[in-house]
Amino acid sequence: MNVKELLFEKLDAKQAEMVKHRRYLHQHPELSFQETGTASYIKDFYKNKDVTVTQPVQGSHAIIVEIKGKHPGQTIGLRADFDALPITEEADVPFKSLNEGVMHACGHDAHTAYLLGLADAFIELKDQLSGTIKIIHQHAEELPPGGAQQIMASGVLNDVDEIYGIHVVPVAGPEVIGFNKENAFAGSSTFTLTIKGLGGHAASPHKTHDALVAGTNFVNTLQTIVSRRIDPSEMGVITVGAFEAPGGANIIQDKVTIKGTARYLNDDLEQFMYEEIEKVAQSVAVGFDVTYDLDYQFGYPVLYNHPKQTNHVVDILSASKGDYFEHLVEIPAVSGSEDFAYYLKEIPGTFYIVGCKPEHTETPYMNHHPKFEVNEDALIVAAKSLGEIALNRLMATE
Amino acid sequence: MNVKELLFEKLDAKQAEMVKHRRYLHQHPELSFQETGTASYIKDFYKNKDVTVTQPVQGSHAIIVEIKGKHPGQTIGLRADFDALPITEEADVPFKSLNEGVMHACGHDAHTAYLLGLADAFIELKDQLSGTIKIIHQHAEELPPGGAQQIMASGVLNDVDEIYGIHVVPVAGPEVIGFNKENAFAGSSTFTLTIKGLGGHAASPHKTHDALVAGTNFVNTLQTIVSRRIDPSEMGVITVGAFEAPGGANIIQDKVTIKGTARYLNDDLEQFMYEEIEKVAQSVAVGFDVTYDLDYQFGYPVLYNHPKQTNHVVDILSASKGDYFEHLVEIPAVSGSEDFAYYLKEIPGTFYIVGCKPEHTETPYMNHHPKFEVNEDALIVAAKSLGEIALNRLMATE
Amino acid sequence: MNVKELLFEKLDAKQAEMVKHRRYLHQHPELSFQETGTASYIKDFYKNKDVTVTQPVQGSHAIIVEIKGKHPGQTIGLRADFDALPITEEADVPFKSLNEGVMHACGHDAHTAYLLGLADAFIELKDQLSGTIKIIHQHAEELPPGGAQQIMASGVLNDVDEIYGIHVVPVAGPEVIGFNKENAFAGSSTFTLTIKGLGGHAASPHKTHDALVAGTNFVNTLQTIVSRRIDPSEMGVITVGAFEAPGGANIIQDKVTIKGTARYLNDDLEQFMYEEIEKVAQSVAVGFDVTYDLDYQFGYPVLYNHPKQTNHVVDILSASKGDYFEHLVEIPAVSGSEDFAYYLKEIPGTFYIVGCKPEHTETPYMNHHPKFEVNEDALIVAAKSLGEIALNRLMATE
Amino acid sequence: MNVKELLFEKLDAKQAEMVKHRRYLHQHPELSFQETGTASYIKDFYKNKDVTVTQPVQGSHAIIVEIKGKHPGQTIGLRADFDALPITEEADVPFKSLNEGVMHACGHDAHTAYLLGLADAFIELKDQLSGTIKIIHQHAEELPPGGAQQIMASGVLNDVDEIYGIHVVPVAGPEVIGFNKENAFAGSSTFTLTIKGLGGHAASPHKTHDALVAGTNFVNTLQTIVSRRIDPSEMGVITVGAFEAPGGANIIQDKVTIKGTARYLNDDLEQFMYEEIEKVAQSVAVGFDVTYDLDYQFGYPVLYNHPKQTNHVVDILSASKGDYFEHLVEIPAVSGSEDFAYYLKEIPGTFYIVGCKPEHTETPYMNHHPKFEVNEDALIVAAKSLGEIALNRLMATE
Repeated sequence: MNVKELLFEKLDAKQAEMVKHRRYLHQHPELSFQETGTASYIKDFYKNKDVTVTQPVQGSHAIIVEIKGKHPGQTIGLRADFDALPITEEADVPFKSLNEGVMHACGHDAHTAYLLGLADAFIELKDQLSGTIKIIHQHAEELPPGGAQQIMASGVLNDVDEIYGIHVVPVAGPEVIGFNKENAFAGSSTFTLTIKGLGGHAASPHKTHDALVAGTNFVNTLQTIVSRRIDPSEMGVITVGAFEAPGGANIIQDKVTIKGTARYLNDDLEQFMYEEIEKVAQSVAVGFDVTYDLDYQFGYPVLYNHPKQTNHVVDILSASKGDYFEHLVEIPAVSGSEDFAYYLKEIPGTFYIVGCKPEHTETPYMNHHPKFEVNEDALIVAAKSLGEIALNRLMATE
Repeated sequence: MNVKELLFEKLDAKQAEMVKHRRYLHQHPELSFQETGTASYIKDFYKNKDVTVTQPVQGSHAIIVEIKGKHPGQTIGLRADFDALPITEEADVPFKSLNEGVMHACGHDAHTAYLLGLADAFIELKDQLSGTIKIIHQHAEELPPGGAQQIMASGVLNDVDEIYGIHVVPVAGPEVIGFNKENAFAGSSTFTLTIKGLGGHAASPHKTHDALVAGTNFVNTLQTIVSRRIDPSEMGVITVGAFEAPGGANIIQDKVTIKGTARYLNDDLEQFMYEEIEKVAQSVAVGFDVTYDLDYQFGYPVLYNHPKQTNHVVDILSASKGDYFEHLVEIPAVSGSEDFAYYLKEIPGTFYIVGCKPEHTETPYMNHHPKFEVNEDALIVAAKSLGEIALNRLMATE
Repeated sequence: MNVKELLFEKLDAKQAEMVKHRRYLHQHPELSFQETGTASYIKDFYKNKDVTVTQPVQGSHAIIVEIKGKHPGQTIGLRADFDALPITEEADVPFKSLNEGVMHACGHDAHTAYLLGLADAFIELKDQLSGTIKIIHQHAEELPPGGAQQIMASGVLNDVDEIYGIHVVPVAGPEVIGFNKENAFAGSSTFTLTIKGLGGHAASPHKTHDALVAGTNFVNTLQTIVSRRIDPSEMGVITVGAFEAPGGANIIQDKVTIKGTARYLNDDLEQFMYEEIEKVAQSVAVGFDVTYDLDYQFGYPVLYNHPKQTNHVVDILSASKGDYFEHLVEIPAVSGSEDFAYYLKEIPGTFYIVGCKPEHTETPYMNHHPKFEVNEDALIVAAKSLGEIALNRLMATE
Repeated sequence: MNVKELLFEKLDAKQAEMVKHRRYLHQHPELSFQETGTASYIKDFYKNKDVTVTQPVQGSHAIIVEIKGKHPGQTIGLRADFDALPITEEADVPFKSLNEGVMHACGHDAHTAYLLGLADAFIELKDQLSGTIKIIHQHAEELPPGGAQQIMASGVLNDVDEIYGIHVVPVAGPEVIGFNKENAFAGSSTFTLTIKGLGGHAASPHKTHDALVAGTNFVNTLQTIVSRRIDPSEMGVITVGAFEAPGGANIIQDKVTIKGTARYLNDDLEQFMYEEIEKVAQSVAVGFDVTYDLDYQFGYPVLYNHPKQTNHVVDILSASKGDYFEHLVEIPAVSGSEDFAYYLKEIPGTFYIVGCKPEHTETPYMNHHPKFEVNEDALIVAAKSLGEIALNRLMATE
């Protein structure tokens, strides 16, 4: 039995445990930067195992587990994120979120679960391993500035030669693995626009400066950035996710708060979209006699899959196709963002997709939907694919 | 000394007490239909006084105080409202609201305070009075369906011959009393529009039906009802007071809630504005592939000051001008609404204005503003004017 | 037979001729400031009559006819306008416009026709008349700066003591005369906004600055001036009458031209609406990276009917009610504009309405509609009413 | 000297004549389907030459010139279009358009000119040629349904084995040839939306249904199709090229006409965009109480360059690089449309780009701009490249 066979045997044996991890995490979701319980759960898991566990980011929850093989080799980073979203779960599952208003609606519970299983298997195989595996349990992927940037800044990955990661996505079942080269996930920025007018009585709009109507005008004019100002052959999205002007019907309010995000696959658009959004905000200020405050955060950059490492992954997985999964497909760039992009700015590697569509549906709810569900067979596919990639790359010489 | 002189002497003596009442109420504001503490305070005030105190509205806080004069005469209703608003006080006064998020921002504290003083004086003068005074301490003026309608429905005012009321407004100081004839306060309706789309990830708008953008489109198109569809010589206002789509920047939400109000001085517009608002909602549903639920409440009708009673008031007050106030002015109809309109639909009477602009400013904050303030000299002007009107009308034969 | 009886007898005799005048003018409409044929027709009419005919406005078509009575008295101005509109007639009348694209759609043909008849009668009665009548055949009422201002500037009316005029309106039939006091017709301004962007190919909006979308945004935001910024109890209208961006579907144009008008009954709004319209234009320039040129013309001011003269008219016509017309009604201010306002800024007088609803319909087409029609019985009502007003005022001493 | 060398020698000799053709055509531009003079010019050119000239499209101007080689071989189609655009030329050239308002702003003059030269050379070389060349002088490329579809329907190209064409584009100079594989030019549809309301006087919007404001609302809401409803990774454009509501400031019009185009690189979007545009039109009808008529024409489909033929072209031109041009580059799909797509739906082939940036500028005006200019060196590059492609493919056996 070679190392890969041993690894896969161990992973098969741990499959039920991975599912258990995943369900526990699913029931106990925590918001980005607040993952205290999740971090404890992970640390407890490694307690009494023969590995070095560090928390490199001061005041935050990232956990790095170093698994040193007996033989010389490369240092390979494997990353899973573990934060959840401010969404009230509506999925009908027996292990529903116990934290009202918070939900693992993006599959990070599954990411962490399979990586715990994979790390465990690698620990058991330490004596057969070459090089070093750095397991990266990352906090706060969902909320810029995000955990990845903090982990990179800590220097803990300075010695990593290549890095790999996975996202589960329900566009297909676990029999499908998807990859893409070069620009793969969109860059994203987020903004909070506060428009301040002058409030008053609903019956006397002329004595006020109606911030709410200025705000709705902002949102409508904003549409023209994507529809008229961005090259139609470029990917560009501006979404307003929140418009906060709560209150009664009879009162014209002093201010409204608008939150949104911009997405792009071309780094040039990062600055351009910011400038256009500010321009629309200025225009509303001029036109409606209101003032504004635009808090604009450049978020995750475009995620760039290194062609060489992506080709390695394609070669490795092509050889296993038909074994633990059926299809390996090249997929188009996606408009979602991933702070894995920060790792890939410095470290060669690639980030790929494992299908997680539940069996019971042909029209699955996507990531971030209150009814999002994960087909748990994705866990073993993720663990095995990332496992064999790691084994291969640990011993790679070029 | 005639009865009026006696009354005014008593009111002068009670001025400080009225101020005390007003400040207590100001510190303890309660939302419409929830005025438990306020009602207790009022009932306590009348305890051990020789009057009949009833609470005619089952499950609500209205208090009617019947003061029967020794001599025969008319039955005259005098009304003050006592509810507050969901506004966080920003006025810099030593007796600031102790109930965070609730504020007497419309002056109902002042209304109730002067009416307590006036009622007290009348009680002391019972033996000199003709007819019957019904003091109406009304709950829930700010929130349709409003307290007035409930009080009318109770039948407790069936025997009232004429009814009078006052609102304090800071457009002028307490030296000014304003009146107007016929259509004086706007009718108002309120609505809550819920737009339901299909939520999803901010980066994939094409997989969603974006309720938020549908909602901002609704607000913008709504402007054309007033700007294009209502006779420019008619008063018409549509204000959207709330747009509720809270959340994060990264999530396209399933729904938004929009709250607004329509105002009009012509009863024909009540139905017309409803139909046009519904039309705009339908249009957004068609254009954005969303559904909507429009909860539309016809609110307070147009307040109609009866010409005959208004003329009486003008005659009575004209005679006192230069005594306890300086100017009696005819004012244009106002776009605010008042549920006093329900009384005037059945009972002849009039509703008038006492100035309450603070001395320290030339640019006062209007009613419903978080910095609204009342010049407390308005209390004695309100009490004396309504007092002499009541005295006159109690003895009126036509 | 007194002078009035003589006058009325003559007018009755001339009724058919007035109708003939009106139909000739209707068939030969001419645009404002281009009324060459109309002016010739009028001058021909007065040829060989014993009156002074002058054309006081250099390079334009106004005609003043001075009818000097034998006896001393006041100088009274009577005015009718004679220009037509750039509208293609769709009314089904046998004397339809022969000037394609131009139409007497506002009734100025009727105004001029009755005044020709009335002037003729007065000329025949010269020896019985006191004072002087100045017949003012005015050009260019429809197009600011308008003819009235030019006539006033010429000084030809400096000696006029009072001035009167009529408009026909089909809200009622000729049996109804309407009057109103003080602010009676709206002030109006007009504007032409040119938005300049950068044109290009329809498939590459990102290489252009799309002036058309900037322009539609301007029109939409413009709605908020009336809906949110003007006191709801004030009359305010902003209409965009033209949006000119002709061309093909495949070309993004360099510029669009937008024409509109603002109306108001309060002179304060004249400047305010200008500033708000400019603000919205600026906002569009900022938001869409385009430039603009706003040509804003303050137009006719609010027409103010002098109370004293209006009362005289009411008194005079009340006495004739039931004779040649049936109803004299006070009407609300109208949102249309009239350059008669310029006369009334300097000369006391009043401007009133004669009904001209055709008999065959209950839902008449209004002034400025391509199917507008005039009930020609209005001619004799106009002539008699203005005739007796003039007779009365010529002899007035206060 | 081989055939290619002979061909190139002849083309060099004809270069000045090609420029002469181009300038003549530039001075005499004609709109799509109206190219009478252009067709005569072309037919005159072939008069007395030993070729078959046919006009296969009844009532239109397409000209097919069949050049039969002496030897057996494939039948190869070569196409150039010859219609112009409704644009007033602003380019400062000595051979400016003499047809006011019409301009060869897309380079079809250059296309026709080089193809005349190339055809001439081939005719002279007939005896050395294998197979048959079909020269396609196409009318009406700019105006759907376009000439290509009509030519295909005529059957005249039924025997064509492969087809090739060129477009000149000023993104680079004539030293650059660009190609792309598969979906290369966008599909396009065009629409004319007529919105009918009820006109009236500018001062009385409430008596009208304002079609103009409905129209601007349509344009604004339309933006959300691209910004919110199309997959951000798909190319999608909707441009409104014309908004026609001419008139005066004082009249609310009965109707407005809006013309636009939709572009897409994915055939699925053709129907989808139509449905969404109709949805927005419906929504405006519902919301503004107007009616509409949507004339929607599916236009040119997505242009698909056949991979095999594109590869042949790349191979052929790669071998000539450095000879008569310098760079051969793969370019991204363009958002413009081309009715060459109809040929490629039935006949294998490819359509490629020759740079035509003038030497005097680094910021050239693009096709369809009033200042668009062509570097005439592009003529010889076009002629030689298409010439050698034709020679190669005539003799091809697979």
